[in-house]
Amino acid sequence: MKALEDKIDKEGLVFPGNVLKVGSFLNHQLDVDFLMEMGEEIGRLFENDGVTKIVTIEASGIAIAVATAAKMHVPVVFAKKTKTSNLNGESYTANVHSFTHNKDYDIVISKQFINKEDKVLLVDDFLAVGNALNGLIDIVGQAGAKLAGAAIAIEKGFQGGGDALRTKGIKVESLAIIDSMEDGKIIYRH
Amino acid sequence: MKALEDKIDKEGLVFPGNVLKVGSFLNHQLDVDFLMEMGEEIGRLFENDGVTKIVTIEASGIAIAVATAAKMHVPVVFAKKTKTSNLNGESYTANVHSFTHNKDYDIVISKQFINKEDKVLLVDDFLAVGNALNGLIDIVGQAGAKLAGAAIAIEKGFQGGGDALRTKGIKVESLAIIDSMEDGKIIYRH
Repeated sequence: MKALEDKIDKEGLVFPGNVLKVGSFLNHQLDVDFLMEMGEEIGRLFENDGVTKIVTIEASGIAIAVATAAKMHVPVVFAKKTKTSNLNGESYTANVHSFTHNKDYDIVISKQFINKEDKVLLVDDFLAVGNALNGLIDIVGQAGAKLAGAAIAIEKGFQGGGDALRTKGIKVESLAIIDSMEDGKIIYRH
Repeated sequence: MKALEDKIDKEGLVFPGNVLKVGSFLNHQLDVDFLMEMGEEIGRLFENDGVTKIVTIEASGIAIAVATAAKMHVPVVFAKKTKTSNLNGESYTANVHSFTHNKDYDIVISKQFINKEDKVLLVDDFLAVGNALNGLIDIVGQAGAKLAGAAIAIEKGFQGGGDALRTKGIKVESLAIIDSMEDGKIIYRH
């Protein structure tokens, strides 16, 4: 999505260690008119995939998930992050390792809100090595639901998480894929 | 908003201790079509108040803030919750006590994203004693911004937070105000 690449080039801040900050429009301040455009594009990319539910992770996935759902007219479920496993049997849980924060956390979704009749589109703001997304895929599997695929705003292609999923046959659509960002210069995959 | 009262009556679960769970549409699963309706209603309620920015708190405030911004065409900024104060001088912070979880946390907004030119509408999913909202009002003051008011999906009127703010002259609009919920029966204020 050219408009997203332009937005990253204009507003994104690159820091050492391949850190990209897009807090001005995607994960602290939200440019909601632009989010709605991204949601419409994701809706088009998955309009023939029979999606019944969008699943994301709190907190910064919620905004783009809502924007996508406004186009697709299906419910969103957002996984909650916790530090301790919920063992009451009422929730699906998966463990996720965060390289950004160098710690593990659990993601939790109530069994009420995802089931084997669902065809799930995963939506998130960022995809790097894919740990969060793999946790969500694990939960979709636990629920016996089908996976329609994953839609991401910004994929760090050079970290491999997206391509690993594509190799498994999962439909992964990222609105911008960054192939390198050395010396502050961002190169996109086309 | 009659449609919200009907939704609470149909899907809300009341637990001892005046706990109301609305995870089926507002804070775990999100009924996005309905959220967009709530956002439109909030937009109408504040259409003449010169709002330049919507401010909320992660995570469950983000969805209704985005829905409101889609109507009002202004940016959203969501405060982040942290356990430790950010003392680098680049952020506004306020301390919030959560009665629900019986602990304190800090909310943080980068100084980049709120300033004295802004007229801020605070948006959140729930209002009870008002600690989170008072933290946001504190931050709006630190930034020298003006406060347009606060828009809430569900206010627990019997906990007094909303009325305390109204007494101070702040415009607080809640789409549903619960005056009591004893024995599982919800009584709304009209």
